[in-house]
Amino acid sequence: MSASKKRLYIQEVATRDGFQNEAQFVDTDQKIALVDQLSLCGYAKIEVTSFTSPKAIPALRDAEAVMHQIRRQPGVEYTVLVPNVRGAERALSCGVDEVNLVMSVSESHNLTNLRMSRDQSFAQLRDVVSVVQKTDVAINVSLSTAMGCPMEGDVPVEEVIRWMHCFAELGVRGITLCDTTGMAFPSQVRTLCRKARATFPELELTLHFHNTRGMALANTLAALDVGIDRFDASLGGLGGCPYAPGATGNACTEELVHMLELDRYDTGVNLAGILDASARLPGLIGHDVPSQLLKAGRRLDLHAMPSIGEDGRPEQRAVCH
Amino acid sequence: MSASKKRLYIQEVATRDGFQNEAQFVDTDQKIALVDQLSLCGYAKIEVTSFTSPKAIPALRDAEAVMHQIRRQPGVEYTVLVPNVRGAERALSCGVDEVNLVMSVSESHNLTNLRMSRDQSFAQLRDVVSVVQKTDVAINVSLSTAMGCPMEGDVPVEEVIRWMHCFAELGVRGITLCDTTGMAFPSQVRTLCRKARATFPELELTLHFHNTRGMALANTLAALDVGIDRFDASLGGLGGCPYAPGATGNACTEELVHMLELDRYDTGVNLAGILDASARLPGLIGHDVPSQLLKAGRRLDLHAMPSIGEDGRPEQRAVCH
Repeated sequence: MSASKKRLYIQEVATRDGFQNEAQFVDTDQKIALVDQLSLCGYAKIEVTSFTSPKAIPALRDAEAVMHQIRRQPGVEYTVLVPNVRGAERALSCGVDEVNLVMSVSESHNLTNLRMSRDQSFAQLRDVVSVVQKTDVAINVSLSTAMGCPMEGDVPVEEVIRWMHCFAELGVRGITLCDTTGMAFPSQVRTLCRKARATFPELELTLHFHNTRGMALANTLAALDVGIDRFDASLGGLGGCPYAPGATGNACTEELVHMLELDRYDTGVNLAGILDASARLPGLIGHDVPSQLLKAGRRLDLHAMPSIGEDGRPEQRAVCH
Repeated sequence: MSASKKRLYIQEVATRDGFQNEAQFVDTDQKIALVDQLSLCGYAKIEVTSFTSPKAIPALRDAEAVMHQIRRQPGVEYTVLVPNVRGAERALSCGVDEVNLVMSVSESHNLTNLRMSRDQSFAQLRDVVSVVQKTDVAINVSLSTAMGCPMEGDVPVEEVIRWMHCFAELGVRGITLCDTTGMAFPSQVRTLCRKARATFPELELTLHFHNTRGMALANTLAALDVGIDRFDASLGGLGGCPYAPGATGNACTEELVHMLELDRYDTGVNLAGILDASARLPGLIGHDVPSQLLKAGRRLDLHAMPSIGEDGRPEQRAVCH
């Protein structure tokens, strides 16, 4: 173990990526209170909401109210998802720190997710970039299905790099490689991240994993192996993608931070603080969350010895190994 | 990627470690049918049952019947958990290939799990070893809480090595390091496994992870990093430890195999075969299993595009990244 810990950057997406899929509307006041609580927990960035059509994503129809009323903390960047120029104008009027643009690397997922071809998406996002570049607001692009498409299957690394080039040439600050439906696996992550870092050393590179097939933390380790230092995650493991039925949520922030801090990385995140926030989620959305850490507690949250039976010894209930 | 894949050895524990905790008794015929199905799936070893007291572990009271009636396949080792000489004699009378002995590295967990001190356990297991060594049946020892105790917290590496020495001196074939309640983390796994391999190069070393805090697959990657090639896992992710409330199950076999095969290891295991077996578990135990892979399907189990809306485009339900 080295004395100085490596700094990592954790970006929370639950209030956007998580809440958009929830059947139960989370009240605006509750959204604001949650973001305010998370703002005090040491995140590098919080994806607060999206400026999408209220008809398409009614769960986030209160984007302006939320962005205007949260209490921003210095050192935390507040980003929002923006699909088009109209959304960008709404976001800019709220004084966001960053806009996050989305398109898929695979044609089928882009058609499904954004209802247009990738070329149409790129043309639309190029217009957004032009508008935002007139301001000092940063621009990030989240490339969905970068590690596999639930309709097409494998997505070639070259195709990911090609779309990264398109946006790098426009001068965006960062790109997020998204494993939208949890198809990534460790050796693939290493290969893709190595190539992406070598080709675009100037870009702020983020990895966005889902835990659909249980590999979110394993893929995080693989990304760390090749120098990635910035990760999206979702409180409670909220999220998922409705175009891949059965898919569970995003990488769970508290599980990610718990592992990384044990491995002596400096995430900047207050684990007790986010566990406290995560414990409030079931009350907001009306159901349990995928987080296992929330159920089991932290590694060193210890348990008492069980009760003693009639023979003066603990009652045996199993033989565990 | 190298042309020749590294061979790994996967050991199934669901019918023992999983079933022992289930409230609903799994009929003997069903246990036999499941083991027979698993026997055709390419495992290195199957921990079939335990020869414990039927009063203490009623779920496995049919150990003899199961062991006598399963159809053994060449190349698969059939092992059973044995707590004492009486259990060993019962196991030997069934012609097992291996007996698996259990004790905890931490005193509190041993007192809870086995209702005696570690010294008492060791004395009892030494007697078992003497009895079994008169036959050609192999001996493995599973050391519980080797990566943390839910009552005591951290367990020193030196303490794990000390107990490994005790059993190595008795001449057992193998030792399993068990993360009984999911307290292991990757850098710890690397340190412990490196030390264990270097100190006991002659021992068959197995790692046994639980997914209590979501780290089972990440810890597996860490163990692979330092040359471990043998892993316990439980179909469907069944299992857990009742002495750590809220703890979810063992490392899930199908999720483990899915990741390892994608990473181009040769596990020997037929993934489609075990997924088929896992899908039968809810019917046997009366509830859902933790396996996420069972819900989401394999990485390349693709989905159709969603239905087209009134405007001739797919209905938008979210913006996923």
